[in-house]
Amino acid sequence: MASSSNAQTPPVITTRILRRLLASGVHYRVERMLERIHPADLGPLLADLTPDEIRTVIDLLFKHHRAAAMLKELPPELLPQIFDAVSDQRVVDLLGRVELDDMLELIEGIPEERAEAVRAMLPDGTREALRKAEIYPPSSAGRAMTTAYTALDEKMTAQEAIDSIRASGDLDESILYLYVVDEERRLKGVVPIRRLVASPPDRPCSDMMITQAISTPPEADQEEVAKLVARYDLLAIPVTDVDGTLLGVITVDDVIDVITEEATEDMYHLAGLQEEDRVFTAPSQSVRKRLPWMLANLATCFAAAWVVGLFQRTIEQQVALAVLLPVVAGMGGNGGIQTLTVITRAIALGEIEFSSGIRAVGKEFLVGMVLGAITGIASAGVIYLWQGDPALGFVIFTAMVATMAIAGLLGATVPLALKGMGQDPALGSGVVVTFFTDAFGFFSFLGIATLMMEQLL
Amino acid sequence: MASSSNAQTPPVITTRILRRLLASGVHYRVERMLERIHPADLGPLLADLTPDEIRTVIDLLFKHHRAAAMLKELPPELLPQIFDAVSDQRVVDLLGRVELDDMLELIEGIPEERAEAVRAMLPDGTREALRKAEIYPPSSAGRAMTTAYTALDEKMTAQEAIDSIRASGDLDESILYLYVVDEERRLKGVVPIRRLVASPPDRPCSDMMITQAISTPPEADQEEVAKLVARYDLLAIPVTDVDGTLLGVITVDDVIDVITEEATEDMYHLAGLQEEDRVFTAPSQSVRKRLPWMLANLATCFAAAWVVGLFQRTIEQQVALAVLLPVVAGMGGNGGIQTLTVITRAIALGEIEFSSGIRAVGKEFLVGMVLGAITGIASAGVIYLWQGDPALGFVIFTAMVATMAIAGLLGATVPLALKGMGQDPALGSGVVVTFFTDAFGFFSFLGIATLMMEQLL
Repeated sequence: MASSSNAQTPPVITTRILRRLLASGVHYRVERMLERIHPADLGPLLADLTPDEIRTVIDLLFKHHRAAAMLKELPPELLPQIFDAVSDQRVVDLLGRVELDDMLELIEGIPEERAEAVRAMLPDGTREALRKAEIYPPSSAGRAMTTAYTALDEKMTAQEAIDSIRASGDLDESILYLYVVDEERRLKGVVPIRRLVASPPDRPCSDMMITQAISTPPEADQEEVAKLVARYDLLAIPVTDVDGTLLGVITVDDVIDVITEEATEDMYHLAGLQEEDRVFTAPSQSVRKRLPWMLANLATCFAAAWVVGLFQRTIEQQVALAVLLPVVAGMGGNGGIQTLTVITRAIALGEIEFSSGIRAVGKEFLVGMVLGAITGIASAGVIYLWQGDPALGFVIFTAMVATMAIAGLLGATVPLALKGMGQDPALGSGVVVTFFTDAFGFFSFLGIATLMMEQLL
Repeated sequence: MASSSNAQTPPVITTRILRRLLASGVHYRVERMLERIHPADLGPLLADLTPDEIRTVIDLLFKHHRAAAMLKELPPELLPQIFDAVSDQRVVDLLGRVELDDMLELIEGIPEERAEAVRAMLPDGTREALRKAEIYPPSSAGRAMTTAYTALDEKMTAQEAIDSIRASGDLDESILYLYVVDEERRLKGVVPIRRLVASPPDRPCSDMMITQAISTPPEADQEEVAKLVARYDLLAIPVTDVDGTLLGVITVDDVIDVITEEATEDMYHLAGLQEEDRVFTAPSQSVRKRLPWMLANLATCFAAAWVVGLFQRTIEQQVALAVLLPVVAGMGGNGGIQTLTVITRAIALGEIEFSSGIRAVGKEFLVGMVLGAITGIASAGVIYLWQGDPALGFVIFTAMVATMAIAGLLGATVPLALKGMGQDPALGSGVVVTFFTDAFGFFSFLGIATLMMEQLL
């Protein structure tokens, strides 16, 4: 973007330059380049390299002890390739250098047989911590939390708290709240670090802390946690068990990742895609991931075709009807997807509940009917000019109103019903809405045409 | 969600309870309820109330001086209704109580004529600050930044900095970095507050600060800013002009809102929706916002129908072809949307550049062809069983391979080309891809059928 040219951002290193340096074999220049790169910028670079080139880069990162910091920032779909290029011992070294939540993510990128071997080589303490975290369900708060937080006693004063942080020498900058706990490590309150700094030195923590702090249980889904953080503008959220014992903390940077992933998931599910099917996933993988949905879609297409087949005799008498089938299906499908998008997004953002859902269904039905009427009149006009048949225009107008109204009704009802049943409102709703809209559209269009056959030219 | 039942979150207040209390007229109970509510929870409640009920709630909020804190958290589409219920003087009071970025957002919710009157009533200083911020383009960093940040001198020690924060008594907890500036207010470095606390008391700011801090110009689009914050795990980003002068700061809670809005925008644009068309937008508004796209879609549907019309004679001889049109269109359209979703999401997440784009186009073309071959064989089988015609099966197989390959090719090329031209890759690409895929699908299916007419039963 031209307008952001005076932004101060890390230097941009292109894959082209990196490949050229790798090909030339001047490794010290590659090393210098890698030293300057921000961990977050490595992923896009690696995605474009060959396995051999990746191996060289990883070797150089290990040489500079930067591998752990770099790899924990990589998108998960790149991990299998990376681990293929690295010995078990190196993987163990790597895992020893990252925090628990990153360790969990990295270990998921290792093929199962190998993960067992790697686990066996880990220090006992680490293996135990890993085992404990894996008790929590996938994508739960318990797996995303860090256990590196600062706990305070409520009797400490502001200055004592500052002194204790100084003494620990812990410079971790992502920690923004301090947690006041009792002897059993039960969470009593939260002190924002800014409040600690701004308070008089002798004020006790018990007077500074927020006692009704928002927290989450470890079993909660990350999506729910992300909603809490976004809704209440938090920078971190404590994870506590049923007794109120503080287990760990989830920070806002992880929440941003969850929000981004959830948005991807919603878009993907609406289109019938699986999350792991990314832009640079191997073609064979993408085919395998898309095939089940494609076959389901094929079945519904044939079902819609069967509806058309019911009217084969009508079409034989009036081939113009066949020509107009794409108009009915195209408009109905489009209306359905629009409503579906509005409703699934509202559900994802928590803007709609079951009670207000009924109002939304009514609105979408009405909007569909009005849009169907307007586009139906336009269609009738076009058909009169094209085919010179006013009766055919009337048929398409009626079919359009009915189809668009149904598209609005189903586009709103299906995701709300899925949500009500505790299912993902985006998953599969596209295929259901499109099928019923198509089938109903064909049935109404060809059915009305059959009834009006004598009026058609 | 049952599993998060032990989460500590603000008490849930339902619309039903609120309405009942409002109807009963016992305002002191409504007041008590509103006192307990978190500002972020008000929006969903208000969305379900009648204008009269909203008026009562707003009156009570003003009575308790909570209106400003509450209203700045509301979704923008609710603002016009709220302002309708409030006098100009109250709007002015309200604007005086919020920060500049919130003021800009609130003022956008006031109808233009009235906004002029309200502006005239604002204190000179506020009006001037507002005018200055409005120089920056909509959705730019300059409009989203807060000017309430803490500046330090590089010669200050850690303890002096802490003392100066204490003296200011400023408890704003969202401030996480302190900004070191020179006499001209040029940004020299950034001190994370945690680092300030953990450093020895006599260490000067110049030794603690990050000098190569990532920053953004005020003209940068909020989307670009959000990407920087997400990518580098920042908690706030300074906004600086070309001279490096510190203008303001954008905090991570605003960034989360931008990320959420951008995801909504992408989903909406893929479906041909406008952002303002939300679940509870008035039906008349929704119709008006969807109509242009619906008419564009109608035009492409008729263009596709015209392609079918070219083969009217072929269909007259073989009505089974008309029956199968929904299969060709449905599968091609679906394949196109899947590829489109993968590519636009990869563009939005910065996972793909123009160079790697060519590889992505090749991959999607290949994946489309393979999926077309598999579903084509399945279709040929179904048709043989249904219609008993092996030649018709061959026609659909060939058309399916060709259509799905084109769907992959266009689904990848169109958004990348739009991005290359500096356009929104999601906007309009759905209609273009669907049209060409449909038209090509009908042309190949009916064209091959025409050529093979003698072989068809």
